[in-house]
Amino acid sequence: MANITHVVGVKADQEKVFEAVTNTQGLAKWWTNDVSGSGEAGGTLQFRFNGEGPDMKVVAANADRVEWQCVSGPEEWLGTQIVFNIKKEAKETEIYFQHNGWTAETPFHYHCSMKWAVFMLSLKDYLDSGQGKAFPNDIQINTLNS
Amino acid sequence: MANITHVVGVKADQEKVFEAVTNTQGLAKWWTNDVSGSGEAGGTLQFRFNGEGPDMKVVAANADRVEWQCVSGPEEWLGTQIVFNIKKEAKETEIYFQHNGWTAETPFHYHCSMKWAVFMLSLKDYLDSGQGKAFPNDIQINTLNS
Repeated sequence: MANITHVVGVKADQEKVFEAVTNTQGLAKWWTNDVSGSGEAGGTLQFRFNGEGPDMKVVAANADRVEWQCVSGPEEWLGTQIVFNIKKEAKETEIYFQHNGWTAETPFHYHCSMKWAVFMLSLKDYLDSGQGKAFPNDIQINTLNS
Repeated sequence: MANITHVVGVKADQEKVFEAVTNTQGLAKWWTNDVSGSGEAGGTLQFRFNGEGPDMKVVAANADRVEWQCVSGPEEWLGTQIVFNIKKEAKETEIYFQHNGWTAETPFHYHCSMKWAVFMLSLKDYLDSGQGKAFPNDIQINTLNS
């Protein structure tokens, strides 16, 4: 298994972080502006980037833990899990991110690890300042496939 | 094993990327401004952040692959390997980064994965525009331990 792990700390409380990773209006502020569906437990979220992208089934949507499973999208993502663990600390809220279940460290795995970090910075900017960098305004990491 | 993987693409050629990850003047532009030692094969590099930080033995320093082993520093880093694979592609140079040999996905592992992404963006900025964000001017990911 080749997991991707990241963490950022934000000033926002647990509830606001939860909204940012479950509500389509929140998700549109930091990952991609083209998102639809339901972020509630049992729902499915559709994320699109220039018309393509993953569908995520919402496995869990608890105040301190949100988990999705990829049910459609890039072949290497099928069946993988994305988890947001939202931990209240003394001075801030820590968002521990995982993308689990990769079968190999392919070039796409490297790419997605880097891009998830970019989007975690975007999530932090959105929560700290109100202004994220969702696709198509995300930071580019190369000229081949953004 | 819990590896960290990232990739960025840069306009610079392989030779300039090699200099940025082997020459102390280059390293000071994107990772930490406090770096000393030798980045040649068999040498040791000392990286410091407010007086603390890792010593890296240079295991390999080839045009397309630079590898370090951590011989002193944070306990979780001891014995781990850092690799820069530098691949010439048609339109740019891809820098594939690995930090291998972690024994567990600890909170520090999450932290370092995120910070390595921040420093890879800094490396890309340095190579693309001449201006990186080396410590202490690096992007902060939380308020606890930067």
